Amino acid sequence: MTEYRIERDLLGEKEVPKDAYYGIQTMRARDNFPITGYPPHEELIKAFGYVKKAAAMANRDVGVLQKKIAGAVILAAEEVIEGKLSEHFIVDSIQGGAGTSFNMNANEVIANRAIEELGGKKGEYMKVSPNTHVNMAQSTNDAFPTAIHIACLNLSKGLIQTLNELIEAVKKKEEEFDDVLKMGRTHLQDAVPIRLGQEFGAYRRVLTRDLKRIERSVGHLYDINMGATAVGTGLNAKPEYIEKVSKYLAEITGFPLKTAEDLVDATQNTDAYTELSSALKIMAINLSKIANDLRLMSSGPRTGLNEINLPARQPGSSIMPGKVNPVMCEVINQISFQVIGNDHTISLASEAGQLELNVMEPVLVFNLLQSFTILQNGMDVFRKFAIDGITANIEHCREMVEHSVGIITAINPHVGYEVASRVAKEAIETGRSVREICLERGILSEEELNEILDPKEMTNPGIAGARFIYG
Amino acid sequence: MTEYRIERDLLGEKEVPKDAYYGIQTMRARDNFPITGYPPHEELIKAFGYVKKAAAMANRDVGVLQKKIAGAVILAAEEVIEGKLSEHFIVDSIQGGAGTSFNMNANEVIANRAIEELGGKKGEYMKVSPNTHVNMAQSTNDAFPTAIHIACLNLSKGLIQTLNELIEAVKKKEEEFDDVLKMGRTHLQDAVPIRLGQEFGAYRRVLTRDLKRIERSVGHLYDINMGATAVGTGLNAKPEYIEKVSKYLAEITGFPLKTAEDLVDATQNTDAYTELSSALKIMAINLSKIANDLRLMSSGPRTGLNEINLPARQPGSSIMPGKVNPVMCEVINQISFQVIGNDHTISLASEAGQLELNVMEPVLVFNLLQSFTILQNGMDVFRKFAIDGITANIEHCREMVEHSVGIITAINPHVGYEVASRVAKEAIETGRSVREICLERGILSEEELNEILDPKEMTNPGIAGARFIYG
Amino acid sequence: MTEYRIERDLLGEKEVPKDAYYGIQTMRARDNFPITGYPPHEELIKAFGYVKKAAAMANRDVGVLQKKIAGAVILAAEEVIEGKLSEHFIVDSIQGGAGTSFNMNANEVIANRAIEELGGKKGEYMKVSPNTHVNMAQSTNDAFPTAIHIACLNLSKGLIQTLNELIEAVKKKEEEFDDVLKMGRTHLQDAVPIRLGQEFGAYRRVLTRDLKRIERSVGHLYDINMGATAVGTGLNAKPEYIEKVSKYLAEITGFPLKTAEDLVDATQNTDAYTELSSALKIMAINLSKIANDLRLMSSGPRTGLNEINLPARQPGSSIMPGKVNPVMCEVINQISFQVIGNDHTISLASEAGQLELNVMEPVLVFNLLQSFTILQNGMDVFRKFAIDGITANIEHCREMVEHSVGIITAINPHVGYEVASRVAKEAIETGRSVREICLERGILSEEELNEILDPKEMTNPGIAGARFIYG
Amino acid sequence: MTEYRIERDLLGEKEVPKDAYYGIQTMRARDNFPITGYPPHEELIKAFGYVKKAAAMANRDVGVLQKKIAGAVILAAEEVIEGKLSEHFIVDSIQGGAGTSFNMNANEVIANRAIEELGGKKGEYMKVSPNTHVNMAQSTNDAFPTAIHIACLNLSKGLIQTLNELIEAVKKKEEEFDDVLKMGRTHLQDAVPIRLGQEFGAYRRVLTRDLKRIERSVGHLYDINMGATAVGTGLNAKPEYIEKVSKYLAEITGFPLKTAEDLVDATQNTDAYTELSSALKIMAINLSKIANDLRLMSSGPRTGLNEINLPARQPGSSIMPGKVNPVMCEVINQISFQVIGNDHTISLASEAGQLELNVMEPVLVFNLLQSFTILQNGMDVFRKFAIDGITANIEHCREMVEHSVGIITAINPHVGYEVASRVAKEAIETGRSVREICLERGILSEEELNEILDPKEMTNPGIAGARFIYG
Repeated sequence: MTEYRIERDLLGEKEVPKDAYYGIQTMRARDNFPITGYPPHEELIKAFGYVKKAAAMANRDVGVLQKKIAGAVILAAEEVIEGKLSEHFIVDSIQGGAGTSFNMNANEVIANRAIEELGGKKGEYMKVSPNTHVNMAQSTNDAFPTAIHIACLNLSKGLIQTLNELIEAVKKKEEEFDDVLKMGRTHLQDAVPIRLGQEFGAYRRVLTRDLKRIERSVGHLYDINMGATAVGTGLNAKPEYIEKVSKYLAEITGFPLKTAEDLVDATQNTDAYTELSSALKIMAINLSKIANDLRLMSSGPRTGLNEINLPARQPGSSIMPGKVNPVMCEVINQISFQVIGNDHTISLASEAGQLELNVMEPVLVFNLLQSFTILQNGMDVFRKFAIDGITANIEHCREMVEHSVGIITAINPHVGYEVASRVAKEAIETGRSVREICLERGILSEEELNEILDPKEMTNPGIAGARFIYG
Repeated sequence: MTEYRIERDLLGEKEVPKDAYYGIQTMRARDNFPITGYPPHEELIKAFGYVKKAAAMANRDVGVLQKKIAGAVILAAEEVIEGKLSEHFIVDSIQGGAGTSFNMNANEVIANRAIEELGGKKGEYMKVSPNTHVNMAQSTNDAFPTAIHIACLNLSKGLIQTLNELIEAVKKKEEEFDDVLKMGRTHLQDAVPIRLGQEFGAYRRVLTRDLKRIERSVGHLYDINMGATAVGTGLNAKPEYIEKVSKYLAEITGFPLKTAEDLVDATQNTDAYTELSSALKIMAINLSKIANDLRLMSSGPRTGLNEINLPARQPGSSIMPGKVNPVMCEVINQISFQVIGNDHTISLASEAGQLELNVMEPVLVFNLLQSFTILQNGMDVFRKFAIDGITANIEHCREMVEHSVGIITAINPHVGYEVASRVAKEAIETGRSVREICLERGILSEEELNEILDPKEMTNPGIAGARFIYG
Repeated sequence: MTEYRIERDLLGEKEVPKDAYYGIQTMRARDNFPITGYPPHEELIKAFGYVKKAAAMANRDVGVLQKKIAGAVILAAEEVIEGKLSEHFIVDSIQGGAGTSFNMNANEVIANRAIEELGGKKGEYMKVSPNTHVNMAQSTNDAFPTAIHIACLNLSKGLIQTLNELIEAVKKKEEEFDDVLKMGRTHLQDAVPIRLGQEFGAYRRVLTRDLKRIERSVGHLYDINMGATAVGTGLNAKPEYIEKVSKYLAEITGFPLKTAEDLVDATQNTDAYTELSSALKIMAINLSKIANDLRLMSSGPRTGLNEINLPARQPGSSIMPGKVNPVMCEVINQISFQVIGNDHTISLASEAGQLELNVMEPVLVFNLLQSFTILQNGMDVFRKFAIDGITANIEHCREMVEHSVGIITAINPHVGYEVASRVAKEAIETGRSVREICLERGILSEEELNEILDPKEMTNPGIAGARFIYG
Repeated sequence: MTEYRIERDLLGEKEVPKDAYYGIQTMRARDNFPITGYPPHEELIKAFGYVKKAAAMANRDVGVLQKKIAGAVILAAEEVIEGKLSEHFIVDSIQGGAGTSFNMNANEVIANRAIEELGGKKGEYMKVSPNTHVNMAQSTNDAFPTAIHIACLNLSKGLIQTLNELIEAVKKKEEEFDDVLKMGRTHLQDAVPIRLGQEFGAYRRVLTRDLKRIERSVGHLYDINMGATAVGTGLNAKPEYIEKVSKYLAEITGFPLKTAEDLVDATQNTDAYTELSSALKIMAINLSKIANDLRLMSSGPRTGLNEINLPARQPGSSIMPGKVNPVMCEVINQISFQVIGNDHTISLASEAGQLELNVMEPVLVFNLLQSFTILQNGMDVFRKFAIDGITANIEHCREMVEHSVGIITAINPHVGYEVASRVAKEAIETGRSVREICLERGILSEEELNEILDPKEMTNPGIAGARFIYG
């Protein structure tokens, strides 16, 4: 049977499980917000550990927090960073109160752990108070955004590494398929020849831009608002404290964090998040396009385009024997849809800021951190289980080029668009080849056609058979 | 050179072009809102004509508006309905003020036209006042939403007719292609046989549900809030007037309009619009899926699926001779994207209502009316220029079925999924047919296979060769 | 140390934990899709139990599944329904493969449990095969959508009840506040008087329409596609089976489920979900508007509107003593943003259907079920912790009405808009009352003003002091 | 009566109005796409002029286009740039075909104008062919995106200037209001004091970041894909031509345009647009937040916050005399909603790219250019008609601070959060002042309170009365 201790706050008393490191305000939040059932993201919990540790160090240094208390708080915060107390972070990911419940959950867990360290029992807040000591010179409105920044920075490290690996994998395919001639398609209709490697090159390049976009957006997170306190004016935060807390946070996290130039601005505006989410969304869009291309190119095996093969990862059907589906591409599409939807929620939350604060940050950060996580997870398996193992059906690709009418485009510069159109029309209607018709109609000579209709040549800039042009 | 007259209001004086039927408040709105350059939707202008006419009739009947003035106002309103004064509606489609500028533009145009009718000169508002007489017992907050309802109702008539025609056209193809056997695909991978007519049947059915969804949503527009005045309490609107104005509006528009049960509710809530926009959005999504299917099935001509042909509507390329693209499908996709984006804007506007009013209605109605218009226009040309002319490549479709491995599914009930999987695997790897392998391995006899592997049979419920099952 | 058994499928062998009821395909899915970390929604798991039970009953009846096997499968399925095997449902909520991994997870868990029941050991699939027996006459493409329908139906029951309770609670406040006179506001600017009860009445009415919208949308879920198998053609599903499986599902779930008229349509189209999600989204928008209104009205305590008080639920600030925030409203706003974002993801997924199937259903259903859950959870606490305890600051509300200029509107019908405007302007500029100015300027007599300027009268339709009007 | 000439293309003959500079393909497009009724954006038309001029210059230089023809084409293109031929650009803004109809409209108009210049009659395409000559070495797939880039660059110049002016205007208010002490609010609840100038400072800073975001995104548009031709491989485009056409385009537009590193990439990927649209969306979100703040702060005049006054721009109501509404803020909100919705459409269009091309670019560019236009128009009037004229109700702001309980926060560091909470509670419940209670309870001395409770001090970092802290 659970035993309880009694805690008190402004609103009255409440039972708290005796073994719990959290306290009364966490309990209230749990009652108030039984919404998603999802606790805070692990990286957000850790990030609060960093914030509280740095604040205690700074408060100690400027002489407002006793060394003994500071020491105990720092130790407790380190355990939060190490994940040792994660199970005590129980408030819901979607909550009212602008993150106060996240912050108070952290304050209470750290206070109680520090109290123990100082020989007290959980709940003896005269020893270490969640508000007076752990939250000293802080407000939810600076501690929470700062924690979000740190969580995003940590997640971005993993995301960027995974993205880099994906880009490398795509690059290998770009090189491997550099000689694979295939039909280019626009509007899903036969266009002109291209090389499979060129297609993967285009994927590599757009992903590389995504990388830069994300890196650039992440950079805005280095500006933190510790010391802003309630509304950004810095009430109750000494300038020396503000200086020190940022310095310490930079040290212990390893990120070049610094105090934002204007703390009022940094407390109420959420454009750092919307920019970051936009960068993730744009990548999601690009990934979805790539996944769609791969699904198209691997369609078949017998009644599709069948240009490439994706690795078989699992039986594709509970009823159709032998069926294998492009499941790794499909999961990328779905992750993309999720990230795009998340960006939408983030935009709504951002727009709902009012005056000195945006109280919608909990749902904003829930979606932002989820976007990071599922993109990283998704890109990792996409690389390992899809990209790395792609093979090309080289012969089939070449045959399609050879049977295509699209190569007619190359004769344009020699005979004009209008004549070429007539040849194309005849080719399509009769099923005969472009070459044959040109010869029969005396439009171009065999020598000219040999030079002009070389598909490989068509995949690089230039006018094939340029010496035949009538200037 | 334009000549001007001087008009006055609460804020001072302003020059108005002498020939203009609009007045000073319209001029102010034009100065304030030079945003999109798009004047009000034609149907919205007409709808204001109906509203003002009915209000004048009701006010006359309850004895607060002199018959002579009422008569002139009614006549002017009729000219608005007929579109004769549309050029004088010049305020921008996106505007602040919750539609007050639309309403005042209508009030001023009608007042000035009525003044002329009574022998006065434009601007002599003591004869007919835009506010006191034309707007009598009205507020923008009842006149504007009522006008929106009427505009939507008129647009929905056209939309529903066009959608009905599209459904009919799809139904004809469903019947025409009832015998065209083709490969069914899931995940873009070969699945089991289906008939092309069945695919068009699925399109018909989803569009038919769209039709019902729209009709049902349109039904909510019959509740209007004339008499609500400023905040829905009906201040300055006599109960007899409220009764009469709805009755007259129903009569002159031909729609079964009636006073909403709760005018406070009807004045501040915009769910009738979000529901309508959702219905349009859902249809847009469904149309886009259909357009995508048609683009896939018509891909080629030589290096795609090439199952169907869309009518050639225009040369597809400025550089590739003979290329023809599925442009009518592509325009449907784009209209869908626009409608989905419009729904997003509408949702944002709806959520932004505050207390007694939603002041974001101008942007809401701009997007809603646009969605109606472009969907109707798009579906009309989609039917005429795409659906009606679709032809099937029957032979090619049949060949693909015959070469497919997907028919293996039919032997499941006879040998179990595991054995069937082995056959399928061998067929895919070797390129040999399912039948051949089954025979060679002694899995099924020729007689059994003949009955089980009939593709046509597979397109209807049942276990082919059921008598061979080992229960 | 975990012990393993070896299982085999089309793609090879794989170790499965010895105690696990799931099998090799579930393992593959876990490897392939480590995306969100969220297992399937509990209601979706249960729904698969219903589907598998009904299918086994129907297959038994039509004589294709041995009674002994059927019995074991039914028993295992019942344990799934009871939640006894939920921990064995381990595939990720976002996955490729159109739900095949959900379905195979269910097939494997049920097969292994049934094998045990028949005296075998897990993995002895010759006794009961996940595909041949548990999935008999089914495909993921009918079993999964049917399970989604059942899950949504079960969730909708709870949602509708919670919504009904919320509506009741709002109705109580509507009655309680029927006499509380307050200033109505449009554009956040003083308008004309209204009663607080009227405002709650408007909330009640829009929520009641939401209720009907959701009920109507839920109704479309009664059409299920069991028997559709792979692409809707019903291959391998006997007509008798199709009839029976729907009948049994209706019986055991208690919902009036029936076979959809066209199974090809029902397999590929997802408009039942987009319609449902739209209904939830529209309610979310309306809830957010209500939450915003309550936050505005309760703003203060000293520097806001301060018309109503929300119950204090938790200390509002980690730094500002005594602060109490409208946290229950804020969580509603955030739930709304989440639901709107989810609807966006659902729309994207729906639009991405291709030919015979929409493979994006996993992300679609993940979002749809989440929307149900968080709306129900949110509305429940919103009612209990916010609505139920709202009190009005009656005196303050009345004082604001009395000091307002907005009541000037009532004199319009007596003196015309232009004269009234001049009075209003003077009142605003000088701070004097409307009454005083009217008297001083001889615009209306004291008797007339007494009758015309009664604020309570202004909250119902009619022209106050109508007998003074000069017709 | 309109007279016609007959033109021919691949698909047959068609009548074209005799005076029209456009030709048969434009006519076909007009028939196919009667969707929005909106012709191409003026800046897009001009941009095509630049593209065609530069291409003719480059083709002339590399010797594939005769000088005489080149000269005539250049002259015609210049007239397009000057807007002289805009009325002949008649294809709809939403169209299938990936912009081919925009491009062919430009090709035909320029060809016919050039033909006239060379002494021919419209339609005599053997003199100057729209495809062979005007479109030489081009494809829609390079000419159209390049034109989009140029149009966006031109629009961004205006946008950036307008934004700069807005930032300047906000900065003036920041300085003007630097001394205006007011209550800071979080959750719409009284928090701690802030200065009005600080609030405007926060607006200035976020807008300044928007400026940088837009400038940075615009920078990606300098990479153009002229020479990519159909799929990016450069078929029919000589390397010398590619070099020259970019150089010429840079010269005549004044933008530092250059050939993209990878033309295949640049032809199929649309992330430059999604990034740009995201930047605009983020600004829209920020503008909407600012507009909401201003609407809140100016709420009243008697029953709202009434902290600031917005300039009166138009009578606010057709029924309520004297009412003035924050219409310039409301139009900003609505523009924001439109831009956010547009971004949604743009995302959908971007995701729908397939293989070598994104055929959804017409709807993408329609929305992107509209976002530019309405943001610029809106910010211009927002500055002139709202920001510039804002005044503060200094006295009222100060009074609210003085009556507030929020200043209690400053005593935290002196007495701890728990004691402060009790004082706050008593103050709120009794209506007495914080100072009074502290004195009465002997919590702080008069001297201490004088120093600690100075509201002005509270608006800058620091602990007021720090010397009283018990470390």
